[in-house]
Amino acid sequence: MDFDEAIDRVVAGLERKSRVINPRQKEIVAYHEAGHALVAEARPHADRVAKVSIIPRGVAALGYTQQRPTEDRYLMTRAELLDRLDVLLGGRVAEEPIFDDVSTGAQDDLQRATDIARHMITSYGMGEALGLATFERPRPLFLPVPMNGPKDYSERTAEMIDTEIQKMLDAAHVRVREILTAKRRTLEALAKRLIENEVVERDALVALIAETPTQ
Amino acid sequence: MDFDEAIDRVVAGLERKSRVINPRQKEIVAYHEAGHALVAEARPHADRVAKVSIIPRGVAALGYTQQRPTEDRYLMTRAELLDRLDVLLGGRVAEEPIFDDVSTGAQDDLQRATDIARHMITSYGMGEALGLATFERPRPLFLPVPMNGPKDYSERTAEMIDTEIQKMLDAAHVRVREILTAKRRTLEALAKRLIENEVVERDALVALIAETPTQ
Amino acid sequence: MDFDEAIDRVVAGLERKSRVINPRQKEIVAYHEAGHALVAEARPHADRVAKVSIIPRGVAALGYTQQRPTEDRYLMTRAELLDRLDVLLGGRVAEEPIFDDVSTGAQDDLQRATDIARHMITSYGMGEALGLATFERPRPLFLPVPMNGPKDYSERTAEMIDTEIQKMLDAAHVRVREILTAKRRTLEALAKRLIENEVVERDALVALIAETPTQ
Amino acid sequence: MDFDEAIDRVVAGLERKSRVINPRQKEIVAYHEAGHALVAEARPHADRVAKVSIIPRGVAALGYTQQRPTEDRYLMTRAELLDRLDVLLGGRVAEEPIFDDVSTGAQDDLQRATDIARHMITSYGMGEALGLATFERPRPLFLPVPMNGPKDYSERTAEMIDTEIQKMLDAAHVRVREILTAKRRTLEALAKRLIENEVVERDALVALIAETPTQ
Amino acid sequence: MDFDEAIDRVVAGLERKSRVINPRQKEIVAYHEAGHALVAEARPHADRVAKVSIIPRGVAALGYTQQRPTEDRYLMTRAELLDRLDVLLGGRVAEEPIFDDVSTGAQDDLQRATDIARHMITSYGMGEALGLATFERPRPLFLPVPMNGPKDYSERTAEMIDTEIQKMLDAAHVRVREILTAKRRTLEALAKRLIENEVVERDALVALIAETPTQ
Amino acid sequence: MDFDEAIDRVVAGLERKSRVINPRQKEIVAYHEAGHALVAEARPHADRVAKVSIIPRGVAALGYTQQRPTEDRYLMTRAELLDRLDVLLGGRVAEEPIFDDVSTGAQDDLQRATDIARHMITSYGMGEALGLATFERPRPLFLPVPMNGPKDYSERTAEMIDTEIQKMLDAAHVRVREILTAKRRTLEALAKRLIENEVVERDALVALIAETPTQ
Repeated sequence: MDFDEAIDRVVAGLERKSRVINPRQKEIVAYHEAGHALVAEARPHADRVAKVSIIPRGVAALGYTQQRPTEDRYLMTRAELLDRLDVLLGGRVAEEPIFDDVSTGAQDDLQRATDIARHMITSYGMGEALGLATFERPRPLFLPVPMNGPKDYSERTAEMIDTEIQKMLDAAHVRVREILTAKRRTLEALAKRLIENEVVERDALVALIAETPTQ
Repeated sequence: MDFDEAIDRVVAGLERKSRVINPRQKEIVAYHEAGHALVAEARPHADRVAKVSIIPRGVAALGYTQQRPTEDRYLMTRAELLDRLDVLLGGRVAEEPIFDDVSTGAQDDLQRATDIARHMITSYGMGEALGLATFERPRPLFLPVPMNGPKDYSERTAEMIDTEIQKMLDAAHVRVREILTAKRRTLEALAKRLIENEVVERDALVALIAETPTQ
Repeated sequence: MDFDEAIDRVVAGLERKSRVINPRQKEIVAYHEAGHALVAEARPHADRVAKVSIIPRGVAALGYTQQRPTEDRYLMTRAELLDRLDVLLGGRVAEEPIFDDVSTGAQDDLQRATDIARHMITSYGMGEALGLATFERPRPLFLPVPMNGPKDYSERTAEMIDTEIQKMLDAAHVRVREILTAKRRTLEALAKRLIENEVVERDALVALIAETPTQ
Repeated sequence: MDFDEAIDRVVAGLERKSRVINPRQKEIVAYHEAGHALVAEARPHADRVAKVSIIPRGVAALGYTQQRPTEDRYLMTRAELLDRLDVLLGGRVAEEPIFDDVSTGAQDDLQRATDIARHMITSYGMGEALGLATFERPRPLFLPVPMNGPKDYSERTAEMIDTEIQKMLDAAHVRVREILTAKRRTLEALAKRLIENEVVERDALVALIAETPTQ
Repeated sequence: MDFDEAIDRVVAGLERKSRVINPRQKEIVAYHEAGHALVAEARPHADRVAKVSIIPRGVAALGYTQQRPTEDRYLMTRAELLDRLDVLLGGRVAEEPIFDDVSTGAQDDLQRATDIARHMITSYGMGEALGLATFERPRPLFLPVPMNGPKDYSERTAEMIDTEIQKMLDAAHVRVREILTAKRRTLEALAKRLIENEVVERDALVALIAETPTQ
Repeated sequence: MDFDEAIDRVVAGLERKSRVINPRQKEIVAYHEAGHALVAEARPHADRVAKVSIIPRGVAALGYTQQRPTEDRYLMTRAELLDRLDVLLGGRVAEEPIFDDVSTGAQDDLQRATDIARHMITSYGMGEALGLATFERPRPLFLPVPMNGPKDYSERTAEMIDTEIQKMLDAAHVRVREILTAKRRTLEALAKRLIENEVVERDALVALIAETPTQ
C-alpha cells in the first residue's frame, strides 16, 4: 500500500473494486467528477485538484475529486467560499447538457453548497440582506446542531435568508454553466479518460486541460 | 418451496391463503395491481414487471406488483424518478374509472409518491421553484427522521415546496390517466385474469399486453 | 351468560345496571343512539345495525349502537367512509330538533368523524384541494401519534386541510339532517321504545322502520 | 364534626380560621362570592347553591360558593355549559361596580370559563365558526394535557377559535352584568351578611333573595 | 446583629461592604434607588418604603428599596398592580434625565414589570383587548414555567398581547416621568444623601420629602 | 513566566508558536486586530487597549486585542454598550478596504455584537421599537440558554426585534467605517508593526497613534 493510497483511504473510505456499476451510471459519475475537477482548476481561489477517481469507495461515494490544499487554513475569505460553491455545483452542472437529465448523485454536494451559502449569510456577515447581524446559533459548517426551542428570528428574516441562499446558488449555477460550456471539449475528454482509466492524477489532468482548447 | 416463492416471501411477507376477502374487494385489488403493472410496462425508465399477484401477504399487503431491476442501482435520474411516481399512482388511477370510487388501498403508494416528489424538490435540486438549494435536513427516502427543533426554512419556502409537490403529482396523475385510458381493454383483461388466477407471471403479462390493442 | 351478551361485553365493556341516570339524560341518550341507528340503516354503504342499547357500560359509554359487518374489511372506499361520517354525526343531529339543545355526548363521535375526514384529505388522496399528495405522517385512524418536530407542511396547506375538513363535515351535517327530518316519526318511535325497553334488537328495529312511514 | 363540615373539608380543604385578612380584602371576597351565588340562583340550568362562605380554606381559596348537584351528571348540554360560564364570571362581575376596581381573585374562575368556552368550540361542536369539526386533541376539561409536537390546525383556525372564545365570554359578561345590576340590592345585602356571619346557608340565601326586590 | 439587619439579610442577601464600586456607578445606583423610593411614596396603592440602601449585597443587587407591607396580602387589585408597575419603572426613569444615558441596572425591574403587565392582560382579565378570556397556561408571577408543546393561541392574539403590554408600560413610563420631573429636587437630595450615607431609613426619607417642595 | 504572560494565558489560552499561518492570512489577522485596537482607542466609553497580538493561541484565536478595564464593572450604560459594538465590528471593517474581501474571522465578533444589540433591545429597554417591555426570557449575555417551548412573543414583535438589531449594527458599521477611513494610515502602520513584531504593547500603540496624523 503506497502513500497515495493511504491518503485516499482516509479521505474517501476503503476502495471497493467489487462493486459493479452499469456503464450508464459509470458515465454519469465520470462526467460528474470531471465537472468538479474542471471547475476547481478554473477558479482562482479553489484548492488545486490532486486526483480524480470514479472507483467506488465507502458507503455512498461513487467517485471523488481530491483537492489538496497546500497548507492548513484558518480563515476563509468570501472569494474562497464562492469558489468552493462553484466547485461543489460543478458535478451537477456537468450532467445537465450531456445527459439532458440530472441524477441524485449531487444530493450531498447541494447540501454542502446550501450550507456554505447559509453560513455566509447568517454567520459570516457576507450576505447583502442581513448585513453584519448574525441570525443562527453558532454551529460548525456541515454539522447540523439539533436546535431545541424555537427559531430566534422572525419569519421575515427566515424569508430573506431563504431568498438570498437561492440567489447565491443561482448565481453560482450561472457561473459554473459558463465555465463548463466553454470547456465542453475538455469535459468530454476528461470523462472519457476516467471511463477508460478510472483514475486521473494531477499531471495527466493538467496536460489534458492544456491540450483541449477552450471555446 | 421453489425459488420464486422464496423471493416473494422476502419481498412481500409470508403468503396467507387463509385470509378471506370478499369478491368486491378482490376486484378492487385486481384493478389496483393491474394499474401498477401496466404503467410500469408503459414507462421507459421503470423497472420491468416480474409478477403481479393478488394473494394477500404480510400484514397489510392485499396484492403486489413485483418489479425486478436488472442490477443494483446507485443513482436515480430525474426521468427514472418521474417514472417511479407514475408506477406508484398507477394503482389508484386504475380504480377511478372502473368503480367510480376510490379506496384506501393507495395510502402507502401516495405517501411514497409524495416523498419522492418532496426529495426531488428539496434534496436533489430537481424542482423548479427552489433551484439547486436544499431545504430539508438529509434523510433517506421513505424513512421519516424525526426532527427536533424548528423547521429551518421560511413559511414562503414551505409553501413553494407544497405547491410544487402538488403540481408534480397532478402532472403524474394526468400522464397515468392517459396511459390507462388508452389501455383500458388491457387493464380489464389483466384484472380479470388476476381474479381468475390470482397470479400473473411476466410471460403471461407480456403476451396479454401484446394481444390487447391500445386504443 | 348467552352468546349475544358475550359479544356486547367485548364491544362495549361490562354492563353496569346500577348506574343511575336521570330521565332527562336518559332521553337524550335514547335520541342520540336512535339517530346513529336510523342513519346507519339509511346509508347504502354503512354496516347494518345489530342492536341499539341505552344501558350504560364501561367508563364513558351511556349507550351504543352496534353495527355488525358481515365480514372482515381490508379496504374502505370513499363512499363507505362518507357513510361512516354520516352514521357518526347521526347521534348529535338527532338531539338538535328534539331538545333544541345539544349535549357533550357527541364529543367522541365528532372526533372520530373529524379524524376520518382528515385522513381522507391528507392520507387517502380523497379530498379536492390537495389532490393525491399526502401531507401527514402515516398514522392509523383514531390513534393520535404524538409528533415530534415541526409540521412538515406550510400554513397554507394547513388552512386548506382545515377548510376541507369543515366542508366535508358541513356536507355530512346537511345530509344527516335531511335523513332524520324525513324519519322524525321513526326517530321518536325508536327513542320511545329505547326508553321503555333499554335495548332494541335488529328484528325489532327493522319492523319499527317498516311501520313508520317516512315523510 | 358534623356532616356539613365533613363535606366542606372535602370540597374546599381544611378550614383555617387563623388566617387574617384585612377588612378591605374580606369585603372584596364577600362581594365576589355573593356574585357567584346570585348568578347561580338566577340561571335555570345551574346547580343550586348549598352554602356561601368567606372563611379562608386550603392554599388559595379565600372563599367559596358550594353548589350541590342533585345527582350524578353524565352529560352536559349547551345551555348548562353556558349557565356554568355565567356562574364562573359572577364573582368578577360583582366586584366591578362596587369597587370600581377588580382583583386577581378571579384568575382561576376566568381560566375555567375560558376552558369551557374552548371545549364547547373545539371539542363539543357547540361553536359557530368551526361547526362540528373538532380541532383539539382530546383532553378533559380543566386538565391541561401537555402537547408534544406542533398544533395540528392552521393559524386561521387558531384565530377563529380565539375570536369565538372571546365572543362567548363577552356575551356571558353582558348577561351576568345585567343579572347583577338588577339584583344589586340583593348583592349588597348578601355581601353584608357574609361579612357579618362569614357563612350563609341555602335557607338563609333563599330567604334573603326573596326579601330583596329585583330592580 | 440587630433586628433590622436580620430582616435585611433575608430580603436582600448578606451585606458585602468589601465590594468596590466606582463613584460614577455608585451615583447611578443612588439615583436608581431614589427613583424607586420616591415613586413608591407617591403612589396611593404602593407599599410604603421602609429603607433605601446602596450598599451592595448578594450576587447582583447593587442597591435596594425595601417596601414593608403592613400585612399579608391575598389579593391584588388592578390599581395596586398598576402602582407596582410604576414603582418598578421608577429606577430606570430616574436615570434618564440625570445622566442622559440609561444603564443595564433596570433589567430585572423591566422583566418584572413586563410580567405583571402580561399577567394582567392574559390571566387576570384586566386588559382591554382580550376581555375576560385567559390566554396563558397558569403560572405564578415571576416564575417562568417552561412550556412544552405549542402556544395554544393564535398569532393575532399574541400580537394583541404584545401590543397591550407595550401600551401599559408606555403609559406607566409617562406617569412615572411626570412624578419624577415634579420631584426632581427631592430626587437629587435623596440621591446625594444616599451617596453620603449609603442608607436612608423611613423617617429620614419622609422628612426629606417634606422638606423639598414639589415643582 | 512573567506576569503579563500569565494574564494573557488566562484571557486568550496557551500560546502556540508552532502553528504556521501563511503570510496572506497573517496579514488579514494583523489588519483585523489593528481595526479592533484603533476603534477601541477612538471610542470614549471603551476600555483602553493593553496589548495587540497576532500570535495564535487556544483553539480558535488567531490574534487578540486585550482591553484592560481599570476596575470591576457592575453596570453598563447604553453609551458603553454602543462603544463595545463598535470595537467588535472594528476587526471586520478593517478588512474591507484593504483586501476588498472579508474573512470568516469576524464570525465570533459578529455574534457577540448581535447579542449585545439583541439584549439592548429586548432586555435592557434601550431600543426604540419595544420601549421598556422585555421580550426575551432572562439569559446572560453571550450564553445561549436553550429555550424549551414556543417563543412567548408574536411574529410582529420578532420582526421588530430583527429590524432594530439590523439598524443598530448598520449604524455601528457606518460609525466604524468613518473612524477607520480617517485613521487609514495608522491602521496600515499598526498592521505592518504587528506583522513584523507579532505583539504591540500599549505604550507603542499610543506612540504610533500619536505619530500618524488622522486624515
